[in-house]
Amino acid sequence: MVEIFENETIDDLQRKGLRIIQHQDYFKFGIDAVLLSHFAKVKKGGVVVDFGTGTGILPLLLSAKTQAGRIIGIEIDPVMADMASRSVSLNALEDRITIEALDIKEAGLRFGKNTVDTVVCNPPYFKVREGLQNPNANKALARHEVRITLEEIVRQASLVLKPGGNLYMIHRPGRLKEMILHFNAHGIEPKEIQMISPRRHKAPNLFLIRGNKGGSEELRFLPELVVYHEEGKFSKEICDIYSEVKMDVFNSEETL
Amino acid sequence: MVEIFENETIDDLQRKGLRIIQHQDYFKFGIDAVLLSHFAKVKKGGVVVDFGTGTGILPLLLSAKTQAGRIIGIEIDPVMADMASRSVSLNALEDRITIEALDIKEAGLRFGKNTVDTVVCNPPYFKVREGLQNPNANKALARHEVRITLEEIVRQASLVLKPGGNLYMIHRPGRLKEMILHFNAHGIEPKEIQMISPRRHKAPNLFLIRGNKGGSEELRFLPELVVYHEEGKFSKEICDIYSEVKMDVFNSEETL
Repeated sequence: MVEIFENETIDDLQRKGLRIIQHQDYFKFGIDAVLLSHFAKVKKGGVVVDFGTGTGILPLLLSAKTQAGRIIGIEIDPVMADMASRSVSLNALEDRITIEALDIKEAGLRFGKNTVDTVVCNPPYFKVREGLQNPNANKALARHEVRITLEEIVRQASLVLKPGGNLYMIHRPGRLKEMILHFNAHGIEPKEIQMISPRRHKAPNLFLIRGNKGGSEELRFLPELVVYHEEGKFSKEICDIYSEVKMDVFNSEETL
Repeated sequence: MVEIFENETIDDLQRKGLRIIQHQDYFKFGIDAVLLSHFAKVKKGGVVVDFGTGTGILPLLLSAKTQAGRIIGIEIDPVMADMASRSVSLNALEDRITIEALDIKEAGLRFGKNTVDTVVCNPPYFKVREGLQNPNANKALARHEVRITLEEIVRQASLVLKPGGNLYMIHRPGRLKEMILHFNAHGIEPKEIQMISPRRHKAPNLFLIRGNKGGSEELRFLPELVVYHEEGKFSKEICDIYSEVKMDVFNSEETL
């Protein structure tokens, strides 16, 4: 029996019967998490760590999509970690997913070097002094780099990844330069980038990236992904990708 | 009176009456040069240097589009430099454009530090061991980094640029990581990037970039530019940009 607390909702992800617990005062997952889960590839039996798992959306979607052996979501906020953990129980996925209340900065110590096949991370998008910070502290740390920097995320990912392992991230295009510099400083080779635009003829507002630990130099751009149709509906690409995901679960307020 | 040699043609650029000399055995300009000339901004009276000017296409187009005070095209191949120089004379633009037979590696020595407002460069796209090298040596050095590397181009641009001056380049997306690392190593901040795709839903095959010497960290992506319409015709964006340029002058064989 999984406890559900006041102001929590259970949303149906409409993918293999998955359900997720969310709380009105905490960060809800956005379409960015769904795009990242689609972009990430995980080998059969592989060990995956999600840095900053929040609601646990990435482990849940990756469990449905991949044959990962073990998916560990780490989350610094113990209330979020508990909520994500209850979502795992709600879906009876304890044998594949573990949620740990852990600071990303502790990942190297916790998992040890060269132990993980895949790291996924939907990081806070804004620097501390950038953009409007959410007065709700619970939400602020998911949007702003209050508790972790991009460089530290990349550093910890590089520590735990096996040689040849992949780091999948999503971020704002304005941070691409920094990401490439941090990747370079920590032995991660950028291999694939996909720009994401809200609409045709609009500037991209997100990008997906795959970095490979110790990989050879060969960067490939994928076709740009356009999220909305001209009329404000999801584009065909997005509908193809997420035909099984109930679109109204996304909290568009939280998404760029 | 401008001499025209055997196997040379005079093409009408259909922009302010501009004409250009090209030779069947030498590298002809492609749509990439036209896109770069459109992307580059030059301040009134500014000094512009085009690194590896080839036919002289960029100085010619920039003279028509901008109020640059002085545009200098440097070109390592003396035969190309002579041809570009005759194109300048053909258009009676000697008062604004100079062509010099000069190796890009000599730019810092020739112009001195902090002397140039804008550098433009449509560089060779391929590393020496990458892709099929043109057996025609004249063409090979425009396509392959036989005589110059990307890092050396960025280094020389950084030397000659005034603080706050801009470097405009076009390159293949596969080289974006390297470009960002070289920019970073030489004090050039990437400020604007525009991906260019041949068609919708296709991966980009070129990108435009503006780097600013000593600039603040703020990278902006522009909306992706799509070159061809579904039916193989130029897209509306491209037609809007180049309505005055005669499209059949482009040597599509030379363009990605």
